[in-house]
Amino acid sequence: MILGKVIGSVVCTLKDKSLEGKKLLLVKAVDLDDNLLEPFVIAVDTIGVGIGEKVLVVNGSSARMTDYTRDKSVDSVIVAKVDSINIRE
Amino acid sequence: MILGKVIGSVVCTLKDKSLEGKKLLLVKAVDLDDNLLEPFVIAVDTIGVGIGEKVLVVNGSSARMTDYTRDKSVDSVIVAKVDSINIRE
Amino acid sequence: MILGKVIGSVVCTLKDKSLEGKKLLLVKAVDLDDNLLEPFVIAVDTIGVGIGEKVLVVNGSSARMTDYTRDKSVDSVIVAKVDSINIRE
Amino acid sequence: MILGKVIGSVVCTLKDKSLEGKKLLLVKAVDLDDNLLEPFVIAVDTIGVGIGEKVLVVNGSSARMTDYTRDKSVDSVIVAKVDSINIRE
Amino acid sequence: MILGKVIGSVVCTLKDKSLEGKKLLLVKAVDLDDNLLEPFVIAVDTIGVGIGEKVLVVNGSSARMTDYTRDKSVDSVIVAKVDSINIRE
Repeated sequence: MILGKVIGSVVCTLKDKSLEGKKLLLVKAVDLDDNLLEPFVIAVDTIGVGIGEKVLVVNGSSARMTDYTRDKSVDSVIVAKVDSINIRE
Repeated sequence: MILGKVIGSVVCTLKDKSLEGKKLLLVKAVDLDDNLLEPFVIAVDTIGVGIGEKVLVVNGSSARMTDYTRDKSVDSVIVAKVDSINIRE
Repeated sequence: MILGKVIGSVVCTLKDKSLEGKKLLLVKAVDLDDNLLEPFVIAVDTIGVGIGEKVLVVNGSSARMTDYTRDKSVDSVIVAKVDSINIRE
Repeated sequence: MILGKVIGSVVCTLKDKSLEGKKLLLVKAVDLDDNLLEPFVIAVDTIGVGIGEKVLVVNGSSARMTDYTRDKSVDSVIVAKVDSINIRE
Repeated sequence: MILGKVIGSVVCTLKDKSLEGKKLLLVKAVDLDDNLLEPFVIAVDTIGVGIGEKVLVVNGSSARMTDYTRDKSVDSVIVAKVDSINIRE
């Protein structure tokens, strides 16, 4: 899973039926010092998170393993809101 | 899903039967300021979009989860036309 | 799908039975101005192409969706020969 | 599989049920001289490892092939603790 | 498939049962002039190769399509030993 921060949302009217009713959020990768990095993805929100929250993103076929995205044409989902990260490098 | 812009199309006569009748579009990645980035893919259009439109692209096995691409040898599809992106970084 | 150019072939005697009888071609990524890029893959040819031809390459699990590669240990296949690319950037 | 070092852990209360009860560890890629590299992932621990240990990480759909992660929305798992690496470059 | 050279081996006692009895080799990517590149993976050897040999590596779900790795938590396998590469760039 990738660490990211929700920075926005995406609205699409014309779309595959896989995406109907799905909340699409814009997620930027963040490093361990909380800096926003360049890469971003549009991910389906499966748990109900808000702008500015730190999240875990699952990519690839595993993105279809939530009840909310099963068999959908979705390759990126938000699966968790991060409460804390404990680093002992 | 990846954010991209349709910049062209690709014509192939000799191809696997998976691709027969499929519209193949050239999609460049774009950043959040609408700048075209270097990476590009050739994606199957599943919804009917035109040149210059901003789209969401699904890659990998999830690209086979639309009715139009099921079980096909396709690893990249356009699944949505982007109406608006709301950023609150 | 990725745009590439066939620049050679690979011969392997000792191999998994998945690859028996398969033609393995060396494909370099190309940009839209036809320049060869650094990344390259070894892909199974499913349609019969020759050296110097521009092709579309499917990667990942979708590479197993042609009749020729079904259930094989293959993660990269050539699925089309490119006739023309029309760009309106 | 990717070589990594466990450098921390992640706590999430709000999450997809796929992740319930799973130990989420922060793993940084390491090179062959044991230097920590920039890329990191959050991986599910399937074997019981500790901070500072060198591990192998499986990504993608194969991350769902352990008994502990089968059919879960998980794209990264720790599958082994590395005892030794023998290099003869 | 990716071109690589076997440069070592990895020993793991504590591991998922998917990896029991599997020979884990360290494979560095090589370019077409035979230079070792930085990226490396730990791959399961399915054919019996030795240190210094040039090989083809399959990644992702296709790594589970050999008899030796079916349904295992393995995302990288050596599927062929390369005898020769013929380049006509």
